[in-house]
Amino acid sequence: MKQVSASRAFGGMQGVYTHASAATGTDMTFSVYVPPHREGTKLPVVWYLSGLTCTHANVTEKGEFRRTCAELGLIFVAPDTSPRGEDVSDDAEGAYDFGLGAGFYVDATQAPFDKHYRMWTYITEELPTLIAAQFPANMSRQSIMGHSMGGHGSLIIALRNPQRFKAVSAFAPIVAPGQASWGKKALTGYLGADRAAWRKYDAVALIEDGARLPEILVDQGGADAFLEQELRPELLCAACDAAGIDLTFTRREGYDHSYYFISTFMVDHLRWHAARLS
Amino acid sequence: MKQVSASRAFGGMQGVYTHASAATGTDMTFSVYVPPHREGTKLPVVWYLSGLTCTHANVTEKGEFRRTCAELGLIFVAPDTSPRGEDVSDDAEGAYDFGLGAGFYVDATQAPFDKHYRMWTYITEELPTLIAAQFPANMSRQSIMGHSMGGHGSLIIALRNPQRFKAVSAFAPIVAPGQASWGKKALTGYLGADRAAWRKYDAVALIEDGARLPEILVDQGGADAFLEQELRPELLCAACDAAGIDLTFTRREGYDHSYYFISTFMVDHLRWHAARLS
Repeated sequence: MKQVSASRAFGGMQGVYTHASAATGTDMTFSVYVPPHREGTKLPVVWYLSGLTCTHANVTEKGEFRRTCAELGLIFVAPDTSPRGEDVSDDAEGAYDFGLGAGFYVDATQAPFDKHYRMWTYITEELPTLIAAQFPANMSRQSIMGHSMGGHGSLIIALRNPQRFKAVSAFAPIVAPGQASWGKKALTGYLGADRAAWRKYDAVALIEDGARLPEILVDQGGADAFLEQELRPELLCAACDAAGIDLTFTRREGYDHSYYFISTFMVDHLRWHAARLS
Repeated sequence: MKQVSASRAFGGMQGVYTHASAATGTDMTFSVYVPPHREGTKLPVVWYLSGLTCTHANVTEKGEFRRTCAELGLIFVAPDTSPRGEDVSDDAEGAYDFGLGAGFYVDATQAPFDKHYRMWTYITEELPTLIAAQFPANMSRQSIMGHSMGGHGSLIIALRNPQRFKAVSAFAPIVAPGQASWGKKALTGYLGADRAAWRKYDAVALIEDGARLPEILVDQGGADAFLEQELRPELLCAACDAAGIDLTFTRREGYDHSYYFISTFMVDHLRWHAARLS
């Protein structure tokens, strides 16, 4: 692991790191904020998964999480959204919703994407091992959140690893990629046309198939341009209702899909996580 | 004035605007955050001037000012740092410290820069008139802050307009451009070789020449790479000491020149301003 940069912020350290990933076969970049803490103590870890077109940098620069992480003693980890590099296949037309910046947190099975697009293994296995080894992280106290495509990544990772995460939340998540065009394009490209293979990477399908979490927190902007066609939170509301999952869903009128929305409600999410991590 | 974007944030609105500037003879872009407020009320205005290489966007995205501006009821205005456009002269070698992104908040007198580089008039006359006309701004309650080159801009604008601003503060400001290489290059390029013409655009020289403010707030990172050669805050400390200006100067050990530093102390600065604006 190589440190790209480190800056003091709110009494802690905001770092950016790269490492050669065995999962993706590429160099991967991620950021970690370590709050001020007593030497030798281990701290809970909040994972943040970003949305389409993003890297680690978007939330790191615009997320406004550090003050609260410093106050509550939370490590904040922000991975990239796809493998990157000259060798990594991209969308044929260079579209923003597939390929680079759009890994959808799945392990691809379809050529040529199966060579590097192994984001599921990267986020759920390789990067946690690295974080545990390199940072003062208490890996028995983890939680996960994300935005849009990354909000969905958080939901599916928590649904399939309910024991690992004490809390899961999302800002404007995709909830059922099998029922919206971004998701259909991505899952077809990464996993093939057989929709049965999609279900373990689809939050609503996972709940329909029996996955359970005690509770989920979701905030959704009412002026989000992607709300009706791509995000469709009503599908998650219905699935949680049928499954008895305690979903706290709040529609925030006037808010769009940007980091102006995310940063506004970041403190609420972090406090919700901290209450469940302590 | 044309609205480029508007996003709800912390209950208020973060907007970005462009207009044809008479002062610079170019289109100029700026951002304004208007906090939640009762219809018909007018709110105090905090000006924020950015540093070298920046546009309005840097502090708008990374400054972490909105939560506190919403809480305290402050309008936050972030202008650009220079005129821009194909017609606008730049540094001969395209260096970051002169020309585009480096207007130093002066009215240039030297060709070819005198054609568009009229940032003093733009910031002190034209943009305030536009803000007063277009936003719910109480122009009898203004304050000003900035970073680096923009910290210096804030100091000289306040020193020459002490009645207009209720408060002035700076993050890692240049304090004496006539005594450091960034400043010497810029002032020579914009104002010519005669150093007498520089003094009204040099904070320490203005204080030496009799300009007075009741108090100034400055925070400076101790790990700032520009501290010793370019910023030289000790020159401001000495000038304020000799002039009887109440300077609150704090060296923040371990902090660098980035927005990780600025965002950490933004709340403190805004509270200091608000106390003097109310």
